[in-house]
Amino acid sequence: MNRLTIVKVGGKVIENPDLLKNFLFEFTKISGNKILVHGGGTSATELANKLGIPTKMVQGRRITDEASLNVIVMVYAGLINKRIVSFLHSFGSNAAGFTGADFDLIRSRIRKHPEIDFGYVGDIENVNTDELRLLLEEGVVPVIAPVTHDGKGQLLNTNADTIASEMAKELSNHFTVYLLYCFEKKGVLADPEDNESALSHLSFNQFQSMVNDGIISSGMIPKLENGFNAKKNGIAEVIITNTGNISTGKGTRLTFEDIQ
Amino acid sequence: MNRLTIVKVGGKVIENPDLLKNFLFEFTKISGNKILVHGGGTSATELANKLGIPTKMVQGRRITDEASLNVIVMVYAGLINKRIVSFLHSFGSNAAGFTGADFDLIRSRIRKHPEIDFGYVGDIENVNTDELRLLLEEGVVPVIAPVTHDGKGQLLNTNADTIASEMAKELSNHFTVYLLYCFEKKGVLADPEDNESALSHLSFNQFQSMVNDGIISSGMIPKLENGFNAKKNGIAEVIITNTGNISTGKGTRLTFEDIQ
Repeated sequence: MNRLTIVKVGGKVIENPDLLKNFLFEFTKISGNKILVHGGGTSATELANKLGIPTKMVQGRRITDEASLNVIVMVYAGLINKRIVSFLHSFGSNAAGFTGADFDLIRSRIRKHPEIDFGYVGDIENVNTDELRLLLEEGVVPVIAPVTHDGKGQLLNTNADTIASEMAKELSNHFTVYLLYCFEKKGVLADPEDNESALSHLSFNQFQSMVNDGIISSGMIPKLENGFNAKKNGIAEVIITNTGNISTGKGTRLTFEDIQ
Repeated sequence: MNRLTIVKVGGKVIENPDLLKNFLFEFTKISGNKILVHGGGTSATELANKLGIPTKMVQGRRITDEASLNVIVMVYAGLINKRIVSFLHSFGSNAAGFTGADFDLIRSRIRKHPEIDFGYVGDIENVNTDELRLLLEEGVVPVIAPVTHDGKGQLLNTNADTIASEMAKELSNHFTVYLLYCFEKKGVLADPEDNESALSHLSFNQFQSMVNDGIISSGMIPKLENGFNAKKNGIAEVIITNTGNISTGKGTRLTFEDIQ
């Protein structure tokens, strides 16, 4: 099977056009088929603040009322997605930006929770890979914004980490998939204070004990759970790396074996 | 050659979700290949106002500084484009939304003017129809937002009427193209006060004399000039119609012959 690299990027690199350009230049060096999935960093919150729309977070998730959804669609699917696409073309990459609504790529269902109304948050039901595969065959580089839809005309806010892992799972039926989660740090750190302490591998047992010991912080836990979930479902490699290393293969590889 | 209908829509219908849904349902009734090009109505100006970004218009064109460009990309390429795409899927249309940056569909050049600095306004240099034709063959309905790029990483604000006519010209080498400009009125009115006075045809001579007599108002003049320019360049039919009539073929047909 052909190789496909799916890169998830978020955080500060998204918000700063110069950092973003450097990252995208590294991204274009990845050989073979590739897909970029991006988050939005704090830009959506900043726009919401300017517009006087309060940001409500519960359990690390944004409560998405209609006004917040509009902000998310504007910032993620509009400004950030099209800026990335335009920069990628300047580096000779035939990029095209999509949400889950375009070509019905990702259909999701509004989140039902017994106690919390998350609003317009979508949990993924189906990833349609037909159009993605046609585009990848043509050499197109899809750039995916974290917005999906329910198929009935409602756009939904969907977590970018989950989009990356669900796409990776579906596409691993057709490609040897490498899934890269990109951060400012060089990988999962054995010592959170030392950026040079990135582990070459992280086993699932090790992950659980590092969570118990408080070494892996709360924000990273769902991301790594997503990563292990993807790894369990036939993805060749799941790598936690930093934005400067995406074309080198360096970083922390997730594994279910205990490597000494 | 196969038939292709390109519909340009803007104005109030874009801003009101219920009007937009009705219009899109009519749009899906058009048989054969179709492309929708949309403007943004007053939504971009409203968001700019809320953000305290002044809107400067010169000769009917928006002066687009960086803050205004970001607003345009957010509203046109984000909110409006994705809302349309999601609504079209709810009617069974396999829609996908693009700007000129996606697939390098429309490359433009920043406008140079001897006296006025229009800012990030792009004049179209090239329409790349390769990807559009592949998508149309697959039955995809492209939805185009009025944002283009310069190929060097700069997004640009580009007039939606011009995008529709330039796309129509390029695609008329491969399709029999019908270009429909949609408004609230039933066509070009012989009497601006009477919505039932829509002309079945408007010749170029008639257009010029109606402009001289002040019957055709300033806002319509560049739109009709765009339409006549398209008609001159091999488009089968250019029709000015209203949003309820797009699937019926009713409206005012532009012509270079004087029809009595």
